Amino acid sequence: MSTKYTPPAYTSIVTQLPASVPFVGPETQERKAGQPFRARLGANENGFGPSPRAIAAMAEAAGHVWKYGDSESYHLKAALAAQHGVAAENILIGEGIDGLLGYLVRLYIAQGDGVVTSAGAYPTLNYHVKGFGGEIHAVPYAGDHEDPQALIAKATETGAKLIYLANPDNPMGSHHPAEVITKMIEAVPEGSLLILDEAYVEFAPEGTAPKLDPQDRRVIRMRTFSKAYAMAGARIGYAIAHPDLIASFDKIRNHFGINAIAQAGALAALADQPWLDHINAQVARARDEIGRIARMHGLMPLPSATNFVAIDCGADGAFARRVLEALGARGVFVRMPFVAPHDRCIRVSCGPDAELEAFAQALPEALRAARG
Amino acid sequence: MSTKYTPPAYTSIVTQLPASVPFVGPETQERKAGQPFRARLGANENGFGPSPRAIAAMAEAAGHVWKYGDSESYHLKAALAAQHGVAAENILIGEGIDGLLGYLVRLYIAQGDGVVTSAGAYPTLNYHVKGFGGEIHAVPYAGDHEDPQALIAKATETGAKLIYLANPDNPMGSHHPAEVITKMIEAVPEGSLLILDEAYVEFAPEGTAPKLDPQDRRVIRMRTFSKAYAMAGARIGYAIAHPDLIASFDKIRNHFGINAIAQAGALAALADQPWLDHINAQVARARDEIGRIARMHGLMPLPSATNFVAIDCGADGAFARRVLEALGARGVFVRMPFVAPHDRCIRVSCGPDAELEAFAQALPEALRAARG
Repeated sequence: MSTKYTPPAYTSIVTQLPASVPFVGPETQERKAGQPFRARLGANENGFGPSPRAIAAMAEAAGHVWKYGDSESYHLKAALAAQHGVAAENILIGEGIDGLLGYLVRLYIAQGDGVVTSAGAYPTLNYHVKGFGGEIHAVPYAGDHEDPQALIAKATETGAKLIYLANPDNPMGSHHPAEVITKMIEAVPEGSLLILDEAYVEFAPEGTAPKLDPQDRRVIRMRTFSKAYAMAGARIGYAIAHPDLIASFDKIRNHFGINAIAQAGALAALADQPWLDHINAQVARARDEIGRIARMHGLMPLPSATNFVAIDCGADGAFARRVLEALGARGVFVRMPFVAPHDRCIRVSCGPDAELEAFAQALPEALRAARG
Repeated sequence: MSTKYTPPAYTSIVTQLPASVPFVGPETQERKAGQPFRARLGANENGFGPSPRAIAAMAEAAGHVWKYGDSESYHLKAALAAQHGVAAENILIGEGIDGLLGYLVRLYIAQGDGVVTSAGAYPTLNYHVKGFGGEIHAVPYAGDHEDPQALIAKATETGAKLIYLANPDNPMGSHHPAEVITKMIEAVPEGSLLILDEAYVEFAPEGTAPKLDPQDRRVIRMRTFSKAYAMAGARIGYAIAHPDLIASFDKIRNHFGINAIAQAGALAALADQPWLDHINAQVARARDEIGRIARMHGLMPLPSATNFVAIDCGADGAFARRVLEALGARGVFVRMPFVAPHDRCIRVSCGPDAELEAFAQALPEALRAARG
């Protein structure tokens, strides 16, 4: 080829982006370690598995996968609308909350536009914001809870276009009751939009999800089939918002981007609410068991409204990281919060007995290794 | 809610975007018509279906869908690298070519940047370009072929960053031999990158796909599992390019966005090359049959290197649209090219006998209706 050739320049935004990725996947870690994990408890996946009806629907749909998926996800939207008591025009189906966050940021954020979030909250939101040239304004948590008042105050101060709050929270597992969220929505300033990430809300106590007015322009609510419905690999989630906002995604979204098998699986999963009850019972048991294991070794499990438990390792971030690495070396995949003081914790996902047993075996050894 | 509230402003690019969608899906058309299509021959789907091994792998993977897919698609990249005789670092897995085009445009195109394509070529490319504020510079086809020299000349003239060519072409079904493409790559001007869309290349005659130097910075090649592998609903495709370009996607792509079931299916499909031969035999038969049906009614089928046939209806675009609509009213879904003079044609996908029979039955009636 010509030695003179120079490729086109990346956009100025892309040129400034780091090569970092929000998360290193467990398979990547396994390949690096040269051995598979015995317990996969790091990504808040739901190892209790999807509804057998959803599995059957996906297996059946595999035979029809020569067809593109319905670009309107009509049946799934109708089922979700009925479940939530809203109209189909209030609902957008997307490629998981990650995909939905990417589209939402692209709608609003250009070079220099501000987004308010909590320091240490979901990093994929920040990844998208920086990816479109936006600026993150981070406020600290109040203890182990995200701080709605501080988020609103920062948005008011900076004129940020988007405000992000996860309820329940990831990575700490804490939650606010619906009344607090309702008040926060009432306080959203002019020119801002609240992203209410409810990825874990199906695990939370009754009274966590606020009743939302589907005509309220101040909030977009995001839900997923990745967590309670145990379909993380299917990449399907949804947003609920005012019809005008929902319609605006049609200007930029990948219209045929929703996997047809995922659509079929989500529809079947949604119809099997008894399975969700079964999952919640299993998750509650696993939460207790993780707490018991932690306490047995002198560690403090934090209260959790999710399918994971943040465990306070009793020292600083460096110590918790040593615990995490020692667990990894013993075949137990967990993750940990990104910022102090939350990084005193490791974060352990609820999973089946065999995986929790592997964690229970590895933890005392990991603690010795981290201390030694 | 407060009556004073105003939502945040969309970005200036989004504000200028129309509410249009690149394609209206067949399900949307069915819901509008109040009845299902008897023959689904409009979206160049592959109704002969995926490899039974791929179906089995996807059904199996459905049970493990609680896990996120491997963010590096390691095994699939390794298999593709072996097949193409390149390194894994030359390969990027994406959410179909639609997804890959979106990412590629985002890497390079900011407000006012130029992209050269052919008038009437793949509209989803244009959708992404406009979606990021870019400008389309369109050149006419040369007859029923895209015109590599004109595309290169226009890129040189405008300083466009990207040049799009599909080989074989959609919607006309024509193709250029590898030598022509190789010459085109040699002529890519400084500061431009050629997007070589090879979605249909597995259907094309030997000698259509050029041997590519994986170190050549001037071209990115795009392939899909949607067409020959009959997995359109799985949303999985790949790009082959210089490792630096491939790595740059990591700055913006949705790292956990590739469906785990699709990864398993693609890997199994790739391992079943005899099925691809079977598909190609079926497609060749169906191409002949579509040609026979067209000729029987005095219409002219165009030569095709794809799994569809453009049929010259012998008059103008208005006439062809009447034929298309009359076919639709009789339960036969087909599409047609967007611009003159190609819109003298309807575009019919290769499909199983029963669907082609429905087309054969409906065509004479549709022609009468269009003429009457």
